[in-house]
Amino acid sequence: MNGNNGSNYARLYGVGVGPGAPDLMTLRSVELLSRVDVIAIPRSNKYTKSVAWRIAEPNLPKVDGQERLILDFPMTKDPKVLAPAWDIAFSKIGRRIEAGQEVAFICEGDPLFYSTFNYLKNQAQTRWPGIEIEIIPAVSSFTAVPSVIQTTIADGQERVAVVPASYGLDEIPAILELFDTVLLMKVSSVMPQLVDVLRNCGVLENSVYVSKATMEHEKVVTDLTSIQNDKCDYFSMVVIKQHERSGVLEGAVRG
Amino acid sequence: MNGNNGSNYARLYGVGVGPGAPDLMTLRSVELLSRVDVIAIPRSNKYTKSVAWRIAEPNLPKVDGQERLILDFPMTKDPKVLAPAWDIAFSKIGRRIEAGQEVAFICEGDPLFYSTFNYLKNQAQTRWPGIEIEIIPAVSSFTAVPSVIQTTIADGQERVAVVPASYGLDEIPAILELFDTVLLMKVSSVMPQLVDVLRNCGVLENSVYVSKATMEHEKVVTDLTSIQNDKCDYFSMVVIKQHERSGVLEGAVRG
Repeated sequence: MNGNNGSNYARLYGVGVGPGAPDLMTLRSVELLSRVDVIAIPRSNKYTKSVAWRIAEPNLPKVDGQERLILDFPMTKDPKVLAPAWDIAFSKIGRRIEAGQEVAFICEGDPLFYSTFNYLKNQAQTRWPGIEIEIIPAVSSFTAVPSVIQTTIADGQERVAVVPASYGLDEIPAILELFDTVLLMKVSSVMPQLVDVLRNCGVLENSVYVSKATMEHEKVVTDLTSIQNDKCDYFSMVVIKQHERSGVLEGAVRG
Repeated sequence: MNGNNGSNYARLYGVGVGPGAPDLMTLRSVELLSRVDVIAIPRSNKYTKSVAWRIAEPNLPKVDGQERLILDFPMTKDPKVLAPAWDIAFSKIGRRIEAGQEVAFICEGDPLFYSTFNYLKNQAQTRWPGIEIEIIPAVSSFTAVPSVIQTTIADGQERVAVVPASYGLDEIPAILELFDTVLLMKVSSVMPQLVDVLRNCGVLENSVYVSKATMEHEKVVTDLTSIQNDKCDYFSMVVIKQHERSGVLEGAVRG
């Protein structure tokens, strides 16, 4: 299949499979993954199953002639390890694209929200000039985690901040001044310091830890001091919900 | 059907139907809406069809015995108009809940992200003590709008801010200092002032306007000055994407 863009490449898809529960995939993602030539499946190492594939597989009966291409993306921040590993993965995708095959790269959550797909997208036009890219948005942890704890993300005049905790501890006080809801990502490696920061800011009581939201071993912790020194899960988030900046009915109904 | 919580009420569901395209509904939302006793359908007035129902309807064949309960939620900020209208709507829902019926309240986007469901949730325990609530998260404009313009929401160390423009114009400069991606909601009524603020902050070139993302009349505008004085759509957003705060491969591959 060739794109209608003048290039000889078929289309490249970034497909979000949602936060964890297989039935939180969209109709579009299931339909698309049922008909593409190649499903590209990222995994972090050869000993564990791909998280994205574990979500998608229950919805995808085997299709004759469709390839399931497993790719290794090691979990490290060391560019000397990452760069060659990613080059191998992207080159494998490239051989399919150059052969005119449609490739759908699946992502846990959404393809544009802290996902490996962002790197593939950024390199795509250099590797395959003129290629058409299509992104299938998904339910991300941004809505899934609040749904588990039934916390309003934003309402009326409220503002939301999303901050990777591992890089932004120093600025949390300033961010709490400006925002009503703060979603802290990547908290697992900084819990000891983070709990201290939240206590100093006076928001420890308003903070909830959630890991593996909508997945099998989902965990919700409201007393963060009880896990301050634990090794926390990679798929975890802390939600801080402050005062409400008056929804439209504030004065009339609640006031 | 009664809940297993000791109350006599059946469960109340907040169900997100996604950003606009019917096939961006989740499998779970379609399955649930196919079997509840009552689908509560909010509309803004009696002359236009409910946006949420326009999204959901193509996926929901008529079910015998299921009620489609249309409710009026006027589009105004005046509490004198809103409070009585919402009381009528919530009371209609209440009559079904008190009769032991499961009610699913549908929402365009996600139920916890600038949605009327937040108010229903906040009043539920007062109106129906002990009621069980379940929230079905959805694809929201938070991921859908970036997917349309293929802009990374966040990556590596990046931070994201969600701000209702109609209430936060003065603080946009401070927010741009702290955040890499800024999603401005509710821009339609403040475009003239907003374009000036973005120009003064030097981010006009990095700003994109999107309305009706994933819907039939989707519109993307990259030159915001061209619409500065237009009447803009209610379902619109401005995405500001600044410099990237180094993804993990920054030094190795792009540097």
